Amino acid sequence: MLDSLFRPKSVAVIGASTRELHIGNRVIKNLLDFGFKGPIYPINPKADEIRGIKAYKSIMDVPEEDGVDVVHMVIPAKLVPLAFEDCGKKGVKNIIINSGGFSEIGPAGEAIQNDFMERAKKYGIRVLGPNCQGIINSDPDIRAYCNFTFTKPDPGHISITALSGGVAEVIHQAFAQMGIGTRIYASNGNACDITIPEIVRYLGNDDGTRTIILYVEGLRDAATFMEVATEVAAKKPVLAMKAGRTELGAKAASSHTGGLAKADIATELIFKKAGILGFRDEAELCQAAVAFASQPIPKGNRVGIITNTGGPAVIATDVFGDNGLEIPPLSEKAISTLRKKVFPEASVSNPTDLLATGLAEHYRAAMDMMMEEEQIDSIFINFVTPFFVDTESIAKEIAEVNKQKRKPIICNLMTDPNQWGGVVEILKEAEVPCYNFPGEAARALSALVKYNEIRSREIGEPTCFNDVDKAKAAGIIEKAKAREILTAAEVYEILEAYRIPVAGWGMAANAEDAEKVAGDIGYPVVIKADSETIVHKSDMGGVAVNLEDGLAVRAAVEDMERKLKADDLKFFIQKYMPGGKEIIIGAKAEEGLGHLIMFGLGGIYVEVLKDVVFNLTPVTKFEAEEMLSSIKTAALLEGVRGEKGVDRARLVEIIQRLSQLVTDLPAIQEMDLNPVIAYEDKVFAVDARIAI
Amino acid sequence: MLDSLFRPKSVAVIGASTRELHIGNRVIKNLLDFGFKGPIYPINPKADEIRGIKAYKSIMDVPEEDGVDVVHMVIPAKLVPLAFEDCGKKGVKNIIINSGGFSEIGPAGEAIQNDFMERAKKYGIRVLGPNCQGIINSDPDIRAYCNFTFTKPDPGHISITALSGGVAEVIHQAFAQMGIGTRIYASNGNACDITIPEIVRYLGNDDGTRTIILYVEGLRDAATFMEVATEVAAKKPVLAMKAGRTELGAKAASSHTGGLAKADIATELIFKKAGILGFRDEAELCQAAVAFASQPIPKGNRVGIITNTGGPAVIATDVFGDNGLEIPPLSEKAISTLRKKVFPEASVSNPTDLLATGLAEHYRAAMDMMMEEEQIDSIFINFVTPFFVDTESIAKEIAEVNKQKRKPIICNLMTDPNQWGGVVEILKEAEVPCYNFPGEAARALSALVKYNEIRSREIGEPTCFNDVDKAKAAGIIEKAKAREILTAAEVYEILEAYRIPVAGWGMAANAEDAEKVAGDIGYPVVIKADSETIVHKSDMGGVAVNLEDGLAVRAAVEDMERKLKADDLKFFIQKYMPGGKEIIIGAKAEEGLGHLIMFGLGGIYVEVLKDVVFNLTPVTKFEAEEMLSSIKTAALLEGVRGEKGVDRARLVEIIQRLSQLVTDLPAIQEMDLNPVIAYEDKVFAVDARIAI
Repeated sequence: MLDSLFRPKSVAVIGASTRELHIGNRVIKNLLDFGFKGPIYPINPKADEIRGIKAYKSIMDVPEEDGVDVVHMVIPAKLVPLAFEDCGKKGVKNIIINSGGFSEIGPAGEAIQNDFMERAKKYGIRVLGPNCQGIINSDPDIRAYCNFTFTKPDPGHISITALSGGVAEVIHQAFAQMGIGTRIYASNGNACDITIPEIVRYLGNDDGTRTIILYVEGLRDAATFMEVATEVAAKKPVLAMKAGRTELGAKAASSHTGGLAKADIATELIFKKAGILGFRDEAELCQAAVAFASQPIPKGNRVGIITNTGGPAVIATDVFGDNGLEIPPLSEKAISTLRKKVFPEASVSNPTDLLATGLAEHYRAAMDMMMEEEQIDSIFINFVTPFFVDTESIAKEIAEVNKQKRKPIICNLMTDPNQWGGVVEILKEAEVPCYNFPGEAARALSALVKYNEIRSREIGEPTCFNDVDKAKAAGIIEKAKAREILTAAEVYEILEAYRIPVAGWGMAANAEDAEKVAGDIGYPVVIKADSETIVHKSDMGGVAVNLEDGLAVRAAVEDMERKLKADDLKFFIQKYMPGGKEIIIGAKAEEGLGHLIMFGLGGIYVEVLKDVVFNLTPVTKFEAEEMLSSIKTAALLEGVRGEKGVDRARLVEIIQRLSQLVTDLPAIQEMDLNPVIAYEDKVFAVDARIAI
Repeated sequence: MLDSLFRPKSVAVIGASTRELHIGNRVIKNLLDFGFKGPIYPINPKADEIRGIKAYKSIMDVPEEDGVDVVHMVIPAKLVPLAFEDCGKKGVKNIIINSGGFSEIGPAGEAIQNDFMERAKKYGIRVLGPNCQGIINSDPDIRAYCNFTFTKPDPGHISITALSGGVAEVIHQAFAQMGIGTRIYASNGNACDITIPEIVRYLGNDDGTRTIILYVEGLRDAATFMEVATEVAAKKPVLAMKAGRTELGAKAASSHTGGLAKADIATELIFKKAGILGFRDEAELCQAAVAFASQPIPKGNRVGIITNTGGPAVIATDVFGDNGLEIPPLSEKAISTLRKKVFPEASVSNPTDLLATGLAEHYRAAMDMMMEEEQIDSIFINFVTPFFVDTESIAKEIAEVNKQKRKPIICNLMTDPNQWGGVVEILKEAEVPCYNFPGEAARALSALVKYNEIRSREIGEPTCFNDVDKAKAAGIIEKAKAREILTAAEVYEILEAYRIPVAGWGMAANAEDAEKVAGDIGYPVVIKADSETIVHKSDMGGVAVNLEDGLAVRAAVEDMERKLKADDLKFFIQKYMPGGKEIIIGAKAEEGLGHLIMFGLGGIYVEVLKDVVFNLTPVTKFEAEEMLSSIKTAALLEGVRGEKGVDRARLVEIIQRLSQLVTDLPAIQEMDLNPVIAYEDKVFAVDARIAI
C-alpha cells in the first residue's frame, strides 16, 4: 500500500528554493547526492532551475501523466491546503509535509491540518507528517532520500521507524558510525494520516528489511499496534524501545508530544505479548540490530567463547552471567580433537584461549569444533589484532565460517581500524557483527538469545470458561452504572457469576437477619456495614471480625446500627478466614487495550516491596503461570520454613477468570480481589472492589 | 619513586630484533613513531643497527654513565636472570619484561621468576611484568611508548592501569576512537614486583593525570589497595571496574589469572569505602572518564536540559530518572529573562527546547541562564546539527561557556563528523565532553553526580567502645582455638564482653540446676541442649521453647537427658522472647581486609529475598545507619500496617560493636547474630554462632 511512498518513481518539491540553507533546496540536494533513480521536479513560481534541475511553476506543469509518487511540501502551513487541491488534481499519490505550524502549535494549526486532510481524503492522497523529516530508502533500485537530514546510509537490511525524528536520526547516525548499512528510514512527525503501525506493516512486507527498529514514546492506537506488531514480529525481528519509562521521562515526553506519553508499563507488556524484543537503551538496541540483521537466531543460551586475550572474555562472561546465558564445558571429544590442532600452551576449554600468538588455522579449528559441539548454541569471538600474526587470515577464516549461518557468530574486535583496515573490511564484508567493547558484543549476543526465548514462548490461547454467567454480571453492571463503585453484594454476585471462589457470604438488614445468615454461612464470621452514603466504614466502627456465635453477631450489628446512622444501612456477612497467604489480584482498564491484570502477594509484599507483576488481557494459562513464577517472592507460594505452599492451579484459574470477566465487561475500570486468601488446597477471595 | 619508569630518559631493548614481526623490533618502532625524547639502545649480539639505530652487543656497551632508565626484555625466559646481572652491573633502574614463560606457566617458570627477582633486589632494579605489555606516557616532554601494542594516544589527562593487558588495550582503543587523549598507560602482567597500588599511587601524584581508570579482576593485597586507593581518591577521581562479578565471570577470571578472582562483593565495597567510583560496564566507564577529565564535579543532582530536538531529551531524562537525578522547574525570573531572548515558539522550561532553528545567541542565553539558576547543578545539552543554522557558532558559544568550569556541561552531539567536522573540532578543542547517544551522555553526567555523592559522604571515624572487655573475649577464643565452633556459653560470654545485648541466659548441668537458672532469668524460657559431640541438636529433640514454669523446665531437661546421651551434655537456658522483628547481623573474615559485616531482616527476607547489605570493617555509625536504610525492606524497620518500628539506635550500635569485636579478634572467621529480636525500645541477640 505504501509502495509509492517508499519506492517512488518520481519526486516533486513544492517550495523548492534556490537558497542553499532552505529545506526546499536541501531535499533536492539530498535526492541528487544519494542518486535517486527517478525524475526530480522542483516547483517554484520564479526559478527556472534549482541545483541544475529544471523547475516548474506549478505541480500541474510537471510532465507526468499518471501523477507524481511523492511530493514534498516545504511551504508555510497556511498555503498547504490549496497546494493539496493542485496535487489532487494532478494525481499525486503521497505528500510528505516537512513544514511545521500544524497541530503541534495548537487549534489554529489543527484547523489547517483538518482542512488539508479533508482534501487528501477526497483525492486519495496519503500524507506523511506534517512537521516531519520524511523517508529514506537505500534500496539500490530506488535510492530515495526524501528527507532533509544529513546521514547517507550504505544499503543494508535494518529499517528504522520512530515517533521522534531526533531519535530516528540518532539511530541512523549510530549505524553510519558503526559502518553498518540501513534500508528504510521513516519518521512521521504529527502523524495525521500514515501511522507507525502502518509503516511497521510495510516494513514487515518489505523483503529487503531483515530487522525493524522501532522507537515510541507512547501508543496512540494500542489495539492496532498490537495487531500489527504481532503479525510483523512473526515474520522478522522487531526491536523496540519505549522512552518516557520513568516518571521524569514521561513528563519530558508529554511536554513535547502533547500528553501522549505516560509512565506506563503497558507498552513494554505489549512488546512482550506481540513478540517484540524491548530495549531500554538506544545504543544497546542499535548494536543488537547489527547482530539480528546478519545472524541466525540461536537455539538456546549456551555460548562457546574463543579468545586470544583473557580479560575481555571475563567482562563478556559477566554480561552473559547477568543475562542468564551459560558457558558450558566442552565434550571430551571436542577437547581432544582441538588440542591436536592448536599451540600446546593454548587453553582448550570454554573459553578457549588461543593466545595472542594464535594463528588462522587455530581459529578455524576452534570455530569448527564449536559449530559441531551439540551443547553450544552460539559462538563469541574475542579477537585482538596483534601485529605479529597474520590477522587478515584469521578474519578470513571467521568470515568463511560465518557463511554457514548455523549458529550465530558475534565478535568483539579489538583493533585500530586505521592500522587494521583490512581485518575490519573482511569482517564487515562478510557481515560478521563486530563490536568495540566486550560488554557490547556480549549484550548483542544476549539479545539474540532473549529473542529466541520470546519467540519460542508458546503462550497458547486464552481459556474460555463456559460456566460463567455473563448476562447476569452485565445486568448488575448495567443497573449500577450511575455509580462509580459497586456495592459489596453486587461485587460478590459478579464474582460468583464468573465462578471466582469467594468466602461464603450473605446480606442482612438487621441483627436478627444477620444471626440467621451467619448461621447459614457457618461461624466464625466477619461483618461489614454496607451503605452507599457512608465512607470510611471501618474507621467508624463498621467492621467486626472473628465473631464466633450468634450473640456476638447480634451485638456487633446493634453496635453498628448505633454508630452508623444511615437509611440504606445493611450488613455484609462473610465467613472469617484466618491463616492462609494473602494474595492480591487486580485489573485496571487501559484505554484501547483491554485491561492490565496484576498479581502479587498482599500486605507488606505489595505495600513495601511493590512485588507485583502485570500482564495484558487476555491472559492465557501459560501467562498466568508465568505471573505466579515471576514475582520476587515466588518461593513463598511454594512454602518456605516449613510453611505449606498454596494452591497454584486455583490461583492460575482465578487470574484467567478475572481476565475473562473484565474482557466481557469492559465498563469495569478497576477491580481488586484484595485479599485473596490462598491455602494449600483452596483459594477464596475475601474482599473485592469494582469501579466502573 | 616510579618516575624513572614512567618518565624514562633512556630506553634499551634487550632482545632487539631485525625481524619486523618481532616484539623486540616493534617496541623500537613504537618508540620512534611516538617520538620518544631520549636515546634508544637496541641490544643485539649480531646486528649493527635496527630500524636505523645503532645496536649494541651488550647492555654493558651502552654509552650511559648513570645506567639506563628502562630496559625492555624480549628474550626467552631462561636467559632473563643472567641478563638481570648485566643490567644490575650497568645500573639499570627499571626492567619491563615483555616475554612470557614465567609464573603463568607453572613451577618451572615460577623458579625463573624467583631467580631474577633475587637479582633485581640485589641491584635495586624495579620490574614491570613479566608477561606484560609495558607502559606508555604521552606527556609531550616524554613520549615514551615502551609497549608493543598499537594504539597511539593523543596527549590527554586520563591515565589507565589494568590487571589485564587486553582490557587496558580495549579501554585505550576506546579513547582513541572517541578522539580523546590519554596520558599514562600501564599493565603489569604477572606483577611480580611493581603492583597496581604502586602504580595508582604514582598516578595520584602525577600532576598531568586528572582522572585514573583502574580495571581489576581481584585484589592480591586488599589492605594496601584500600590504603592507597583512599589516599589517591582524595586527590582526583578514580573510576574503577571489577570484572568477575558474576559466578560465571569469576570462573572465567580465575582460569586466566590463576585463582585470583572470586565472585566477591568485597572489591566493590572497597571501592565505595575508598571513595572510588565503581562501574560495571567498561564502555560506560570510558565515557564517564571523558567527563571527569574536563568537567567540574556538580554540587548536586539537579540538571538543566537545553535541547533542539525532543525525543533524545526524553531518553536522557529516563536515564536521569533511573539514576535519581532531578530536572527541577526554572525560576520565574529565569523564564522571563530567557523568554525575551529566544524564538517565541521555543519552549522555555526544563528541558528548554530551542527548536532545530535555534541560533547561537539562543544557546548562549539558555546556558547563561542555567549557569545563574541556583537550583541547577549541571547542564545537559542535546545538540543536533541542522544544516540550516550556523552550528559552528553554536559550538563556539558552548565552548566559551564551558571555560567557566562553574557547573559541568555535557553534550549529546548528534551529527555526522564527516560533514560537521568544524563543530566536532571546536567542542573537542574546548574539552566539552560529547557523546553519540543521549543515554551515554546522560550516564556520564549521572556518574559525575554519583561521584559527588560518594565524595561528600562523611562516614566519620569508627566509634571505639571503651566499655568492652577485649582481654576476656580474647581469652575465650584462645582457649577454644582447637575447635572450629564455639559453644553457646563461649559465644554469649564474648557477646557480653562486647556489651552486645543478649536475652538473659545461663548454663545448667541438670534438671534441678536448670530450674534454678530459669528462675533467675525469669519465665518463660527456652532450653537448648549443649554438647560438643552432638550435632543437629534440634532435630534430636534438643530444643524446647516457651517453658512457663519450673515443672516444664525439669520435664524438658529430663526428656533431653533421655534422648541425647552425651558425657558433656549441658543445658543452655535463655529468656524466651516472643514478638519483635527478626534481624540477622553477621560477620565474615575477608583475607587481608578485616571482615565483611552483614545486616538484614531475618527469616524469609534473608532466605527468599536475599535482602541483606554488606559493609567492610571498621563500620562507622554513619555506615551502620546507611546499612539499616539500604535494605529493600527498610520500611519494615519503621513499622508498617500499624506495627511498631524497631529501636534503630540500638541496632546501629550492635553493628558497630560487632565490627569492633571482629576487628579486635581477627581469629573469628564467621559470626552470626541470628536472630536478633528487635522491639520498639529494646534489642536482644537471642541466638549466635562463632566459628574461628
